[in-house]
Amino acid sequence: MLPHSVIERLRDTLDEWDGKSASVIEISHRDKSFIEVVERAEASLKRILGMDDEWQVLFLGGGATGQFAGVPLNLLQPGRSAGYIDTGQWGGKAIQEARKFGDIVVTASAKDDGYAKLPDLALVDIDPNWAYLHFCANETVDGTQYGTIAQTAHSVPLVADCSSELLTRVMPLDRFAAFYGGAQKNVGPAGVTIVCVRKELLGSPQAICPAVWDWTQQGANDSALNTPPVYAILASGFVFEWVEEHGGVPAAAARAAEKSTLLYETIDRIPLYSNDRATRSKTNIVFRLTTEELEKQFLKEAEANGMIGLKGHRAVGGCRASVYLAMPMEGVQTLVAFMEDFAQRNG
Amino acid sequence: MLPHSVIERLRDTLDEWDGKSASVIEISHRDKSFIEVVERAEASLKRILGMDDEWQVLFLGGGATGQFAGVPLNLLQPGRSAGYIDTGQWGGKAIQEARKFGDIVVTASAKDDGYAKLPDLALVDIDPNWAYLHFCANETVDGTQYGTIAQTAHSVPLVADCSSELLTRVMPLDRFAAFYGGAQKNVGPAGVTIVCVRKELLGSPQAICPAVWDWTQQGANDSALNTPPVYAILASGFVFEWVEEHGGVPAAAARAAEKSTLLYETIDRIPLYSNDRATRSKTNIVFRLTTEELEKQFLKEAEANGMIGLKGHRAVGGCRASVYLAMPMEGVQTLVAFMEDFAQRNG
Repeated sequence: MLPHSVIERLRDTLDEWDGKSASVIEISHRDKSFIEVVERAEASLKRILGMDDEWQVLFLGGGATGQFAGVPLNLLQPGRSAGYIDTGQWGGKAIQEARKFGDIVVTASAKDDGYAKLPDLALVDIDPNWAYLHFCANETVDGTQYGTIAQTAHSVPLVADCSSELLTRVMPLDRFAAFYGGAQKNVGPAGVTIVCVRKELLGSPQAICPAVWDWTQQGANDSALNTPPVYAILASGFVFEWVEEHGGVPAAAARAAEKSTLLYETIDRIPLYSNDRATRSKTNIVFRLTTEELEKQFLKEAEANGMIGLKGHRAVGGCRASVYLAMPMEGVQTLVAFMEDFAQRNG
Repeated sequence: MLPHSVIERLRDTLDEWDGKSASVIEISHRDKSFIEVVERAEASLKRILGMDDEWQVLFLGGGATGQFAGVPLNLLQPGRSAGYIDTGQWGGKAIQEARKFGDIVVTASAKDDGYAKLPDLALVDIDPNWAYLHFCANETVDGTQYGTIAQTAHSVPLVADCSSELLTRVMPLDRFAAFYGGAQKNVGPAGVTIVCVRKELLGSPQAICPAVWDWTQQGANDSALNTPPVYAILASGFVFEWVEEHGGVPAAAARAAEKSTLLYETIDRIPLYSNDRATRSKTNIVFRLTTEELEKQFLKEAEANGMIGLKGHRAVGGCRASVYLAMPMEGVQTLVAFMEDFAQRNG
């Protein structure tokens, strides 16, 4: 979901771009006006996340799944190891992919708790020699999230997949080596992956790192070593500016807390609904109904009332409300009213 | 450049998509209506290129430069070799990237001819044991192109980067193992890479092949193993349908020939302009003026008259008219009229 004003701006750029009679979707990525799009998006993102010049921002293709390879290919030099937490569906995929490219130590897993509770960062075993410790900060399928990023027992650079929470967490930057995310989840437009990495960690990619995911090369080329996903970067930049105009990341985080609190309060209050997550996500609120039959009926009626996409991921079943950045409080209130009405009729 | 009618369709989809009050740029890639977008684009591309069910079409992220890695990662098994032709700027980059992933034999190079003439496919040395022979079919920077795909001395599966000529060549499919291209050149929208590969060649990617470029996995998942570049696929599909409505690939090839012939005829006729390419490109028409000073003046006046992007690539200098799929004949005629006028004033 994108803010309405962002869609308006995108529609305008399809007509005319930078005073030229060309649409932005047609502009060459070598064109000065496009380079300005990248620079402007980068500057806005750095402002809202508070990143200084020690940070490199990249806009790449291939999704967060591509960066499951990109992380070890850029940060895990031969002979070193990296720690990974099996946080859930996405954390697990990151581990599977990273194993192709280096020695991966799975130091903790949410599996023992049925993926209902994320391993406590303060308690996981840490080898200070690891190149980094990787986790997924918000698991969309499992509906779990790290509320805060607790101090680890030993110092280790953190690397996180933040796809589904980008722009809604005030990042403790001093703790991170890198974080990244596919823009299509919390930011909005599909097709671009945002990578933020400390510049001091650049410069030693593995020999088999593909050029387009070589953070060092892409950084030296303003993400335009090859043709970048122009339109998705433009749309992302518009979203960053929308966040700036609406109180920045602290306000976005507060809105995410407000929206998810209302949903969890409803789930906990009405016996028809339940959520057993110990580390609850602020963006992906999973819930079950008392029977699968009622879940089917709930989803059917919800869709008939214009609330699409409430079906839980096929791996876990049930229901899921994905309350991303641009979802207004009114959307959540509409869902809550429907949940109350459905419960009264089926309680 | 995109056909005007395609931009109209894109603008409409920003407002409403598939009867839903959501814009297509917001639709989940797991949504049925998005899967239809991919299937429809794939079916249209298969129709216009004449590909039957033996062919797998993929829409991936990461650009053609990503596939410079993807090709050997999918087709070059350990212990085997592949032949590459150094056709120019892009063919050379493909070689550089492929060397990270296997034994690459550069069997011929355009370098000896100053990249003005592509090595004759009928004459290059071929090892029939190669996994494939790779070349770039149209070199955008050097302004060269294979007019026809000549028979090689020995049978070998061909793999070509067709980024800058996709949809304007009637592909001799029986000769190819695979061909691919970034859509942003000839097709139009940036951010999606089209890969066409014979299904019989799938199934044995290298162990270090990143999942998002694993053609076998992506093929089994309708290109949606991870989030695909939704909007760029939609736009590409609209362009494929536009080609179908305008006489198909044979007509697009004829228009490319007509447009480039007019430009080359002008360059050859007026002494102020010259082109020394022996294997001339139908999409990237490079030309020099008699002095660099006149070139600067020419580019300055052209831009003042609304003709942007005529500067040659910084690696070769001079001027370049990139006459891609959607450029109308009128655009070329306007350029030719300007070239004639400029020559009269500066002849």
